[in-house]
Amino acid sequence: GPVSAREVVVVRELRCTCLNTSLKVHPKRIARLQVTPAGPQCSKVEVIASLKNGNTVCLDPDAPWIKKVLEKMLDSGNKKRW
Amino acid sequence: GPVSAREVVVVRELRCTCLNTSLKVHPKRIARLQVTPAGPQCSKVEVIASLKNGNTVCLDPDAPWIKKVLEKMLDSGNKKRW
Repeated sequence: GPVSAREVVVVRELRCTCLNTSLKVHPKRIARLQVTPAGPQCSKVEVIASLKNGNTVCLDPDAPWIKKVLEKMLDSGNKKRW
Repeated sequence: GPVSAREVVVVRELRCTCLNTSLKVHPKRIARLQVTPAGPQCSKVEVIASLKNGNTVCLDPDAPWIKKVLEKMLDSGNKKRW
């Protein structure tokens, strides 16, 4: 039968990776940060952190500390520490 | 025989993903940005962009436009456009 609007919405939402976001993670635990802007794939911004212990967590893109961590990461080459 | 200092340096360097970085890429071509700070794995910061055409390119972490693109990406959820 025809796909109802609700089913379509559910399918579209499933293309997001993050269902919820963790609270603050200590920046030093982060090995890598991945930022995916809102787009056709997923209507919300997604910030995914790969942690040094091998785990992966979703972070809140609106949290101010995310921008600061990204800036510090970009500068970490000059300061030789992370 | 004993591993010479040069070989060790080469081995360490090989853990970096980016050998060189591309010049500017139009932000709208970027589907996702990944930032890895300098660390034991690789002594330089690495910024890897996954492009909408499926390609992957390394970008210069010191380039000022990278910070701007990251900020715009983080805000893209509110402005519903990328």
